Amino acid sequence: MALDNTKSTGFTHVGTTPDRPDGVDKVTGRARFGADITAPGMLHAAIVRSPHAHARIKRIDTSKAEALAGVKGVVTRADFATGLTGENWNILENVMAGDTALYDGHAVAAVAATSSLIARDAAKLVVVEYEPLPHVTDVDKAMAADAPVIREGAADTSVPKGLHPNVVRYHESGHGDVEAGFAEADLVVEDHFKTEATHQGYIEPHACLGTLGGDGKGELWCCTQGHWNVQKICAALLGLETANLRVTASEIGGGFGGKTAVFIEPVALALARKTNKPVKLVMPRADVFKATGPTASTSMDIKIGMKKDGTITAAQGTFRLQGGAFPGAPCEFTAMCAFAPYALKNVRQVGYDVMSNRPKQAAYRAPGSPMAAFAVESVIDELCNRLDLDPIETRLKNASKKGTKASFGPTFDRIGLVETLEAAKAHPHYCAPLKPGQGRGISCGFWFNHGGETAVSLALSEDGTAQLAVGTPDIGGSRASMALMAAEELGIPYENIRVTIADTATLGYNEVSHGSRVTYASGLATIQAARDAVKKLCGRAAAKWGIPEDAVKWENGCAVPSGPNAGDFDPLPIAEITKRMGATGGPIVGHFEATPEGAGVSFATHIVDAEVDPETGKTSVVRYTVVQDAGKAIHPTYVEGQFQGGAAQGIGWALNEEYIYGEDGRLQNALFLDYRIPVASDLPMIDTVIVEVPNPGHPYGVRGVGETSICPPLAAIANAVSAAAGVRLRQLPMSPPRILEALEQQRNG
Amino acid sequence: MALDNTKSTGFTHVGTTPDRPDGVDKVTGRARFGADITAPGMLHAAIVRSPHAHARIKRIDTSKAEALAGVKGVVTRADFATGLTGENWNILENVMAGDTALYDGHAVAAVAATSSLIARDAAKLVVVEYEPLPHVTDVDKAMAADAPVIREGAADTSVPKGLHPNVVRYHESGHGDVEAGFAEADLVVEDHFKTEATHQGYIEPHACLGTLGGDGKGELWCCTQGHWNVQKICAALLGLETANLRVTASEIGGGFGGKTAVFIEPVALALARKTNKPVKLVMPRADVFKATGPTASTSMDIKIGMKKDGTITAAQGTFRLQGGAFPGAPCEFTAMCAFAPYALKNVRQVGYDVMSNRPKQAAYRAPGSPMAAFAVESVIDELCNRLDLDPIETRLKNASKKGTKASFGPTFDRIGLVETLEAAKAHPHYCAPLKPGQGRGISCGFWFNHGGETAVSLALSEDGTAQLAVGTPDIGGSRASMALMAAEELGIPYENIRVTIADTATLGYNEVSHGSRVTYASGLATIQAARDAVKKLCGRAAAKWGIPEDAVKWENGCAVPSGPNAGDFDPLPIAEITKRMGATGGPIVGHFEATPEGAGVSFATHIVDAEVDPETGKTSVVRYTVVQDAGKAIHPTYVEGQFQGGAAQGIGWALNEEYIYGEDGRLQNALFLDYRIPVASDLPMIDTVIVEVPNPGHPYGVRGVGETSICPPLAAIANAVSAAAGVRLRQLPMSPPRILEALEQQRNG
Repeated sequence: MALDNTKSTGFTHVGTTPDRPDGVDKVTGRARFGADITAPGMLHAAIVRSPHAHARIKRIDTSKAEALAGVKGVVTRADFATGLTGENWNILENVMAGDTALYDGHAVAAVAATSSLIARDAAKLVVVEYEPLPHVTDVDKAMAADAPVIREGAADTSVPKGLHPNVVRYHESGHGDVEAGFAEADLVVEDHFKTEATHQGYIEPHACLGTLGGDGKGELWCCTQGHWNVQKICAALLGLETANLRVTASEIGGGFGGKTAVFIEPVALALARKTNKPVKLVMPRADVFKATGPTASTSMDIKIGMKKDGTITAAQGTFRLQGGAFPGAPCEFTAMCAFAPYALKNVRQVGYDVMSNRPKQAAYRAPGSPMAAFAVESVIDELCNRLDLDPIETRLKNASKKGTKASFGPTFDRIGLVETLEAAKAHPHYCAPLKPGQGRGISCGFWFNHGGETAVSLALSEDGTAQLAVGTPDIGGSRASMALMAAEELGIPYENIRVTIADTATLGYNEVSHGSRVTYASGLATIQAARDAVKKLCGRAAAKWGIPEDAVKWENGCAVPSGPNAGDFDPLPIAEITKRMGATGGPIVGHFEATPEGAGVSFATHIVDAEVDPETGKTSVVRYTVVQDAGKAIHPTYVEGQFQGGAAQGIGWALNEEYIYGEDGRLQNALFLDYRIPVASDLPMIDTVIVEVPNPGHPYGVRGVGETSICPPLAAIANAVSAAAGVRLRQLPMSPPRILEALEQQRNG
Repeated sequence: MALDNTKSTGFTHVGTTPDRPDGVDKVTGRARFGADITAPGMLHAAIVRSPHAHARIKRIDTSKAEALAGVKGVVTRADFATGLTGENWNILENVMAGDTALYDGHAVAAVAATSSLIARDAAKLVVVEYEPLPHVTDVDKAMAADAPVIREGAADTSVPKGLHPNVVRYHESGHGDVEAGFAEADLVVEDHFKTEATHQGYIEPHACLGTLGGDGKGELWCCTQGHWNVQKICAALLGLETANLRVTASEIGGGFGGKTAVFIEPVALALARKTNKPVKLVMPRADVFKATGPTASTSMDIKIGMKKDGTITAAQGTFRLQGGAFPGAPCEFTAMCAFAPYALKNVRQVGYDVMSNRPKQAAYRAPGSPMAAFAVESVIDELCNRLDLDPIETRLKNASKKGTKASFGPTFDRIGLVETLEAAKAHPHYCAPLKPGQGRGISCGFWFNHGGETAVSLALSEDGTAQLAVGTPDIGGSRASMALMAAEELGIPYENIRVTIADTATLGYNEVSHGSRVTYASGLATIQAARDAVKKLCGRAAAKWGIPEDAVKWENGCAVPSGPNAGDFDPLPIAEITKRMGATGGPIVGHFEATPEGAGVSFATHIVDAEVDPETGKTSVVRYTVVQDAGKAIHPTYVEGQFQGGAAQGIGWALNEEYIYGEDGRLQNALFLDYRIPVASDLPMIDTVIVEVPNPGHPYGVRGVGETSICPPLAAIANAVSAAAGVRLRQLPMSPPRILEALEQQRNG
């Protein structure tokens, strides 16, 4: 798409930091989240889940549950569409088990009743007869020859022959000759790393309210990152025409990728269809842990060769991602992101998507990239240590820049990695003295960012205020950034623009809020829709003045005669045009529908100081600085919020969070008490530096910022902890027991 | 606007009669009407109303009400915007009285509390000190020299000098020389008529739920015929930017014009702002009668001259409309419609809008026209009787047709009055024998119909189904007619189209569902939006095939190569294009925003047989036939429903319905028990004949049908009753006491 009138300076609204439009709603409790909606005659639902990691379902007897007073309906797999294939089949199989329960927490039936309590009681009365099967939950064990097969024939054609059937997808990319490169190196470091599955940890559980009649028409209210996706999937799983299901996105209490997937919505709709009543379904927290998210756990091997001057001669990585009981772990993203920060002559990366008896992994902020960075940047850190090189200078020496052939294939356009490294080097943090027992780590990180299908509309009111309808749920303050961009183009106050997350029935298809795409793609769409509206406004002014349309320009919220007509008429403010729009041609609405493809990739460099208590193994992050390229920060404080949020979640992932499975294949810590996400006292103030290297693919230069921020933390913290502890940590989380074990191993030599 | 590809025959979907898309929802109780929505923390409101017809408000003491446990806030006029002018001031003054209560039931304060019961109790604790003022409720008395003045200075500049200040608007139109015309006549009949105010009688009371924060952002759910109008008015009355109030229209349980006005919504929002809680407000039925609707009552003088052959030589009418305590009674519509069915050389009509101490009148189906028809068609009936002429032949002789200069000014384009008269004449009803005690009446009726600001969008789903978003609430099955028109253009099944009434935030401005505009204007918009989508679909096919866009045509839901490329490629079905739309340019959406101005006027002829019981005065309508020009009936059974509904409401208006005011100026029958609308046993089966004379201003020829159907009944029934009773009835309703009185007067000479 050709971008007209691109600009990167001279903004009036963009770059300011007004309160978010949804702020008052959210602090006063007026905002409505997934569980905040009701409907007359509504029922409440509960899901029956497998207590086995792997078991054949021999029989489901729902009669006792159905007999309980207040129970209005029970559904099992038989109540969903048949004949599905591909990903729709996978999703249905995850949403409601067929013949086999594939993980602890897998849904096998669901009950709708007049109260939530009755529904939960009834769920206990559903009798499921299981035949337990052997299970595996570890990625390396799942690839071993003797591993039980999760599902025969799940592998796609990318998988080389001879691998275990649990390996279902395979990725390989790179260029050059890595063996020749290693031969050129002065030092080659090869190491093995593991990371545990972590949950996105959003505070709001999945919740929805669905209605679906015998006429195949339904409505769904749900907490999601993308309601068109929910619409499409639910329609497929229920056997409906897509258009006949209208989906509205509630406010969202965190998603981080985990709410791009569909879990409970089809179940609520199946119960609604069976009972002909609206059905509400709110996930208990334990179900959220057991049956949604998490990210993939990994097992990785990295080998990097370096010359004494810091030049990387070759890099190679093998990334095994455990994705749960279904295909889909982002092994290709992990592999492709791994070496992206570096301009390498010789590079090769291999990814494996491995099934196990765990919940289907879901996207989590830059899916796959943070683990790769942890492994790669640990090895680079080790190389710098051993070759006595400055870690930033070394990264600068090898940094990708415009024209670099990326490790994953394409050639980079204008990118900002060097600028983040220079800013990190110049930051006071980088040369601040460390106290005894403290260590400093740095890491770079990379994420692709994404465009995707986008539709917005911008309708003007008679008083010259504007109603912007976008289709991407606001997960990080995007209403504010959209309003700023619309204000910039229309030349009207930020407060005069209402941004609404439109439902599926009232706007064209919008891809999920993921891939850091919202400020980029919905922002681009907003700018273009506003320009479309401005063109129409100028047309009305031209008609009023009797001059050609192209003799009218838009300035400061007014139509102004220009060129040969300059000065012929007084500027016509927007409200003067809109108040007569009905009589001058009708409503004025700007539109945009397209699939923007110029999302600029983004890089970050993080600096972390950590202190390790050798007695308890507890790590404290004492100082943290995020330096990231935002392209152009539309609302700088919300950009900083994304930077800080990525770092905070990275701290949890690096230090404490993990899915702990017992020998029985059951999840042992499915509550926030046992699954430890960071709390305020775990975090230092996280400093931020916004670097702005404009993305040529966006009118204002915007790059996505939500995901890159979580790529460096695991590595940067691991490097800091390793420096502080004096021992290399190769497994996440670096929880106190693991640190004590590493210190013990070191002491024992 | 130029209409391309207009057609009036060869339809696939248009003219069929599938079930309405909202049918299952409505019969299973799933549809949500005004009172069917809730919000967390919601309060309930009650309105304090004046018990006086006219009184100065000296003091309002809310302290006792505020002190009641559970009461969260009380509002009075002080809680609304100041400085309003024009109609906004009038609406605010009606929504919440300022210094003076102007009618029995005028709102003076409102309370929000944690329950509806507490709110009603608290409303009784609001102490209002009134100083009663003289009042007037009759239109003729309100024009008399000694009438109390409702409001000094309310008259606009149209009013001739010397009239009472209660006359606030004046209309005069016509052409020729009526005096000369009367001189040419063989017989001149002059008579006086009166009609009483009637209520629209919708089953669903007004109901809404509003939220409004300190940030000036709010949401409103309400039962309305036009939510953009509600948005605009509420924003003005609360002092908000229009765009910052998002209004969603609920399902609507009848409107008939009465829900084009705003009554309770600003009150709910004012309470929401004061309490910072969502506030629900549902009108009790007595409030609906006292403070919403009704239509204007009238006093009319008609003078018509006719030759022995039936030629009308001149016609003159004076129409005095009592509009309640505010300007706005549609005196111009009454005057303009009065003689519209007839091609007249000499015609003059005068209208007066007269204020009184009654609720502000509201639109009611063809506002003003039915009363005019009652008076005019009664006089024509009298002329036919006295000159022994056939009433249909006489009307045919004088009927307006294409090229006729209308009594109200413009020249008619293609119209269907003659066709309705011919069809009535040919109908078995017209020559069926009457039993003793029965009389037959006929009448013609006219309504302008309307276009108005309209915006729709039509978004395609990946499976080739379509989501049509329109902005006009569905008050008569318009979802069905829109889906039929979209199906016709897209060439896909009716069931594959979901029609949604979009809220104000997601579509351009849409005028109220009034003026019989919906099937015409939203229909035209739907057709054009579908054509816009088809153009884009053809563009995708052209790109795939590598041929020019104009070499692709759309046939039966498929893109087909045409012209020199005909037969080069297989037809490409819609779903094949939409499933790849993301990758071939993005979402496909068709748009339309404009103000269609080609609404075709519409005529009807009704035939009624009535039987009068001379002992009780009770009238039975024993046979009823509606013949009306629909232009093109998109969904014939719903067109028939409109025809029958107009007749049914006309029967109530003619025979029983009336606002009865006491000497104290208070409404005496503000309940359905005392205000008698027709029930099933009051109605015969109403036969219908759909005449189709295409409207040149619509792609399929559609004319609005909702309003014209209520224009003839008052007159047709009056003519039938007069024939049956043997005495001319000149006042509505023709209730048993009035009929007995007329019979008595006749007996007494």
